Amino acid sequence: MKLSIERAALLKAVSQAQSVVERRNTIPILANVLIEADGDTVQFRATDLDIEVVDKAPAKVERAGATTVAATTLHEIVRKLPDGALVTLTADSASGRLTVEAGRSNFSLATLPKEDFPVMASSEYASNFSAPAPMLRRLFDKSKFAISTEETRYYLNGVYMHVSDADGGKVLRCVATDGHRLARIDADLPEGAADMPGVIVPRKTVGELRKLLDDDEMKIAVSVSETKIRFATPDITLTSKVIDGTFPDYTRVIPQNNTRRLEVDASEFAQAVDRVATVSSERSRAVKLQLSEDKLVLSVNAPDSGAAEEELAVAYGDETLDIGFNAKYLLEIASQVDRENAVFLFNSAGDPTLMREGNDTSAVYVVMPMRV
Amino acid sequence: MKLSIERAALLKAVSQAQSVVERRNTIPILANVLIEADGDTVQFRATDLDIEVVDKAPAKVERAGATTVAATTLHEIVRKLPDGALVTLTADSASGRLTVEAGRSNFSLATLPKEDFPVMASSEYASNFSAPAPMLRRLFDKSKFAISTEETRYYLNGVYMHVSDADGGKVLRCVATDGHRLARIDADLPEGAADMPGVIVPRKTVGELRKLLDDDEMKIAVSVSETKIRFATPDITLTSKVIDGTFPDYTRVIPQNNTRRLEVDASEFAQAVDRVATVSSERSRAVKLQLSEDKLVLSVNAPDSGAAEEELAVAYGDETLDIGFNAKYLLEIASQVDRENAVFLFNSAGDPTLMREGNDTSAVYVVMPMRV
Repeated sequence: MKLSIERAALLKAVSQAQSVVERRNTIPILANVLIEADGDTVQFRATDLDIEVVDKAPAKVERAGATTVAATTLHEIVRKLPDGALVTLTADSASGRLTVEAGRSNFSLATLPKEDFPVMASSEYASNFSAPAPMLRRLFDKSKFAISTEETRYYLNGVYMHVSDADGGKVLRCVATDGHRLARIDADLPEGAADMPGVIVPRKTVGELRKLLDDDEMKIAVSVSETKIRFATPDITLTSKVIDGTFPDYTRVIPQNNTRRLEVDASEFAQAVDRVATVSSERSRAVKLQLSEDKLVLSVNAPDSGAAEEELAVAYGDETLDIGFNAKYLLEIASQVDRENAVFLFNSAGDPTLMREGNDTSAVYVVMPMRV
Repeated sequence: MKLSIERAALLKAVSQAQSVVERRNTIPILANVLIEADGDTVQFRATDLDIEVVDKAPAKVERAGATTVAATTLHEIVRKLPDGALVTLTADSASGRLTVEAGRSNFSLATLPKEDFPVMASSEYASNFSAPAPMLRRLFDKSKFAISTEETRYYLNGVYMHVSDADGGKVLRCVATDGHRLARIDADLPEGAADMPGVIVPRKTVGELRKLLDDDEMKIAVSVSETKIRFATPDITLTSKVIDGTFPDYTRVIPQNNTRRLEVDASEFAQAVDRVATVSSERSRAVKLQLSEDKLVLSVNAPDSGAAEEELAVAYGDETLDIGFNAKYLLEIASQVDRENAVFLFNSAGDPTLMREGNDTSAVYVVMPMRV
């Protein structure tokens, strides 16, 4: 294998690939990236056995071939090369080394045989459709905060992406929950997605996927089977196993009959919650909300360190209500609101509370109260 | 005590004070800041028993008095208050609480008696002088990287500031070393400093001091005794114990007869060292320098992971020389160079090497070689 490539193109491709590689590996080949050169393209493949990313870049290939080298070392080297450099990669099968040359710099890296690299088995995908990057970004960005980190409840360690019925017909829906709060985000169903099986996309995959979604104009090709999901742009293909489990019936958790309606400026609310929570250093800080006509009083009482209280002008016309929440959960939910106002729908101090952005029902959040 | 103060002025004062407070304290009062209001000034005092910082700010004092509250909590609250807010601090001796009010926010913080706060004993200072902030910044910024972190050699855990003889007469000199490398930085002797006792300024003090030195126009009042050093601006007074030990005779470490002179572009050199070091993941990475006429070859050889080599055009006219250094030490020293060229003076592959910025002898660095 011998090829030359622009440093910027190489850096982009290697960056995306190496981020999938786990920092601590007991299997040496998993620390490596598989470099394959053919035609006028070089591709970089990395995997942790659950996720595989393949990144293509244009290159001047003098001699087709393939080899594997340590992903982080290659990435570090390319990152440190001067901008604008032309980089030559040469695999020498006799010495088992990959030479990286640029200007007066010359690196010789240990390789492992390309045959040892675990390429993810290809799958039949039940459903293939195309989705705009901003749509996927919204679905995952607004739901991922609620993903559980409890490993025993592995079926909650991801975002449940599936087709569902909503008021306006079928939607593509993402749901995440950790049992304390829940996010349910809907988007228009893309053409061809109606038969998609519901899948739980693991947390790490959601994180890696995010890097493919920055370009507002990009269309993402999505392929889904019972066991795998694939997201692809023209340059990058991200394939991931999905979580082998059943996502619980979340619909029962979403309150239908909460009628006490509070409307509040989302950013004022978030800042006030953040401030009053300062006085308590406990992990699960309870914030008390005292609702009366058009008035919300937020308060925290930490006997050891102090107390805090803040008043907000809001729109509220129901009976007075005192209810407590974990400050962190309230903050995370309030920070999802893109528009000015957040609408809370309460029932009683012991029932789950619903939050949405204005009157938009395409993004709803549920949070369990705490006793205060 | 009752006072009101602009949020910005309060934040600045509390920020500086709270950074001295250690995050983990077995003595509760050390987590607190002492607030003293009198006349038209409020002052915030914090200490870790080795360093004390006192920060003054203008305030409208309605009722003079003093109390102590948790430094980090107060800082967090003030940081989160909206910009432009007017903050009222009221100490209620009956309830033992400090009330912090701003707009519709109201905080009530636990206090500890002001009598329990350990105020550092005042000292007689043998020497008092004034030094421009940029001068102190240069003395400490260029030397602190060489401070030892070995606690057993506590007398090396700081910067040795003293008066010394140099070619042009007496200078104010800062020296730091960890036994592997050494930095010796000189500045013009300020008026009144000639009788200053030599003191070892602890690492943490050097870090805290740095925050007083950002303003190029600021004059810093320096006071030195055998046991303490004090740096003061009109608003902030930083007092620190100095390390009770004898700094070793560093002059013997600085080579006088190194004649092999290499001149190299400092930033090109640093970048090349950084790149070739990438192939080795060991902590003490050795970089080999091969010197021949006007040519420098940098190389690293890590049998497991690979090898790297880079060539630089330099000015060198002496015999060929191969010498090795710890990559991290070389990088840190090269990054001290403000001007274009670094000058290295070598003797043999086993002798300490001297580095300076061009022909300027007011900042010299020594680094021990490694066998390669």
